[in-house]
Formats: sequence, structure tokens, C-alpha cells
Amino acid sequence: MKQLLLIGIGPGDPRQVTFEAVDALRRATVFFVLDKGGDKHELLQLRKLMLERYVPEGGYRLVQLEDPRRDGQHQDYVGAVQDWHRARAALYARMLEDELAADDIGAFLLWGEPGLYDSTLRILDLVRERGVAVQLEIIPGISSVQALAARHRIALNRIGEPLIVLPARRLAEQAVIDNVVVMLDGQCAFTALGDPGLTIYWGAYLGTADEILVAGKLVEVKTQIVQVREDARRRKGWIMDTYLLRREG
Amino acid sequence: MKQLLLIGIGPGDPRQVTFEAVDALRRATVFFVLDKGGDKHELLQLRKLMLERYVPEGGYRLVQLEDPRRDGQHQDYVGAVQDWHRARAALYARMLEDELAADDIGAFLLWGEPGLYDSTLRILDLVRERGVAVQLEIIPGISSVQALAARHRIALNRIGEPLIVLPARRLAEQAVIDNVVVMLDGQCAFTALGDPGLTIYWGAYLGTADEILVAGKLVEVKTQIVQVREDARRRKGWIMDTYLLRREG
Repeated sequence: MKQLLLIGIGPGDPRQVTFEAVDALRRATVFFVLDKGGDKHELLQLRKLMLERYVPEGGYRLVQLEDPRRDGQHQDYVGAVQDWHRARAALYARMLEDELAADDIGAFLLWGEPGLYDSTLRILDLVRERGVAVQLEIIPGISSVQALAARHRIALNRIGEPLIVLPARRLAEQAVIDNVVVMLDGQCAFTALGDPGLTIYWGAYLGTADEILVAGKLVEVKTQIVQVREDARRRKGWIMDTYLLRREG
Repeated sequence: MKQLLLIGIGPGDPRQVTFEAVDALRRATVFFVLDKGGDKHELLQLRKLMLERYVPEGGYRLVQLEDPRRDGQHQDYVGAVQDWHRARAALYARMLEDELAADDIGAFLLWGEPGLYDSTLRILDLVRERGVAVQLEIIPGISSVQALAARHRIALNRIGEPLIVLPARRLAEQAVIDNVVVMLDGQCAFTALGDPGLTIYWGAYLGTADEILVAGKLVEVKTQIVQVREDARRRKGWIMDTYLLRREG
């Protein structure tokens, strides 16, 4: 039985980590980190800094992996993601067999919240289907959605209204926009919305020194956000951003 | 200018508190705690224990308030909540004027995440409208939704699907149930759903010693949940629970 911890380490600020997460960091003996290529090298460095801060005495091993590339242009989105998950599951299964001894405790450091738009849990289900017995413990973390709301000093929902969190490709089909949080929007799907009643609260690199916040009427600030976003992405080589849309009554 | 911290202290487990929240607890000089009457006295005690744990040297003041009762039977739900918020705002405005000096830092300890189904932010907007200048800082916290997913070892969303978080009274009008989290369901609204494809992941007192978890096909476990919930509520005098509904494909 392989013991594994999925540790939510928050949106980027090492202070936005829970005591439970730090206990877990200190219990783990092997950390698995995925390198997504040159552009995201900084994210790997941030995780290493977190380990140095909270486990200063060391005593753990770091296993780095190359992440299989996902076919981003695929017509069948869910199918392409499933293929990518299967490729990752094969990699993870081998890695757990090779790197994790019976008395080891493995850990994945996951940005934000492990349960929200993170594929690790689903990939580990596929690892189990491959016959690898895994005992899982999940440590919740502050998601970028929560950091976004806190920094803009807004509530995520209004009285009696739902909160909807969705990936950008589902935004166009959203008929009512009361409180909609969009994640993973590489294409700036918000620019396609023309409703003058919409307000946007946007944030990038939340919880880090590079944090950027923009808020205002969507029709008035959307060009600015696209520009700020593109400048930042070019300067740093990568971007992580999210936003909340709300129709003012 | 009144300085105020809204501190998310997680679902109940003192280890599910962030380092940022503890920094904030240690900066505050006055804590405002609302007493909702005898039944919820235990929740007040839990907050006091958290303060003793993280600010053992003391040096702060605790201001206790009686919470105005909300008219739960009102036909106009949003109107009733707004009336209740206005009553609270009058109370908060007076309390901030009376209890918070210029060099004080006030704080509210909020269960879960301050941005998710918590009315404090909205009430403070009304306090400002009454002419009290307030400088706010918000500290995100782990919500019961995240604790629920972690304890059941599930993701909150599936590939490419939205996550919808809603109050129980909006559940009936929800046409598609992919990933729906229901909060504040005093009436067990899930019992009205008959779709045999639905799975429920339910949890109460998450993160505490009294934690209860039930999961399964909704049609098979809903009677059990109602019974377990009622027994626990009667035994403890109060209950805080939440659940995720998912239609298996």
C-alpha cells in the first residue's frame, strides 16, 4: 500500500498555508514535483522555497518529473484530457512503484485547493485502476478563487444566490451571470461578453509579489485586462489568473 | 477610520487555519463575537479555544454581542435577510463606535471562508452607508465545502464541468446536477430529489471531533442521513452540515 498526501499549498503566498498542510509537509519523505517546461520553472522554485521554509532541516527526497504534454488543439476536449490523464497515470504508477518504499510517505504539492480544477485526484483513480494500491490523504488549501475575493474585498455570492465556478470554455453557454468565477481562461473568454450590466473582478499571480488586480465594469476594463495580462505573461513567461463576473441588479 | 480584520478560521479544526490567519489573530486587539443563543454556545467556546491556542499571552479584549433574530418564516426571503442585515448593521455601527479606539484593530472570527455564504461583508457595507469609515482586510479560510471534499477524498468538479454552490432553497430549480454543493439546508431539501443517478457526499461538524460522513446513492442513503442528522442535532443542540450532489454519467 503506497501512502500519499495531496497537500493544498494555497495560491502562492507561503503564509496562506494551513498548519495541517505544514504538518503534512513535515510527515512526507518523498515529494513528487512536475516540471511543466521552462516557462513554469518559477512555480517549481516557489514550491522548493516553501519546503525550505517549513521543513528547514530537510531529510526528504525530491523527485522531479517531466509532465506529458496535452493536446490543446484537440476537437474532443474531454477525450483529449482523458488521454492526457491516462498518460500521466502510467507515469505516476511507475514513479510510485520505483520511488516510494513501504515506509515512505509520498506527497504532491498542489497549488490552491486539491479538489478544485486539479487533475491529481482523478489521475490517482486511474493509477489505482492499473493495480497500484494507494492510501490517500487530502489536505485542503486556500484556492485562488478565495484569494481573489479577499483581495478585492468582495463576497463570492450575494444573498440567496448560487456561486458558479467554471472553466472558460463553459462561459459562453452560461445564461445567467449572478456570481460566476472563471478558471483556466487562456483565451480571455470574457471579451466575448457585451452585457453592460456586468462587473469583473480580475486577479493574476494572487498571493505573490507580482499580484495584479483589476476591477470595474466589464465593457470599460476588458481591453485593459487583455493588455495587462499579455504584458505580464510575456514578461514572466507564464500567467495564472482568475476572475469573478457579476451582473449588478 | 476603524481598522477591521475579517478572519476565516476554517471549518472547525484549529489545524485548518492558515499562518496568515494566525498573524491576523495576533495583530487584533478587540474580537467581536456574536452569541446566537444557548444552542450555539459551543461554537463560541471553540472560537475562544482557538484564541487561547494561537494568542496564549492574551492582551486582547473580547466583545460579546447578542445577534438579532431573523424572521425565518418570512415569505419574502431576500427582503427578510435584508431587514436582518440592517438590524445587524445598526448594532455593528454602534459597537464599532463604542468599542474600537483609533489605535485598536478589530476582528471578526468567521467559520469557513469569509467570502462564501457569510453575511459579515455585506453588513459592513451597510455600516459604511451609515457613515462609519471602515478599513477592511480579509483573510481567506478553508471552507466546509473543501473539508467535505477532502474527507470524502473526492474532487469538487469533474473534467470540464462547472461547480455550483447554492443555498438549499435554490436546489429545486437546478435542472442539471453535475457537481452541486448545498449549504445551509435546515430542511433536508435533498429528500425531494428522486433521480436514481444521483450520488450524495454528506458531512456534518467537519473538522471537529464530532464529524460525521455519509456517502452513497442518494435514493439509498437519504433516509439514513435525515435520521443521523436529526439524532446529532438533538444530541448537540445544533448542527452545521453540507453536501455535494453528483449525477454519475
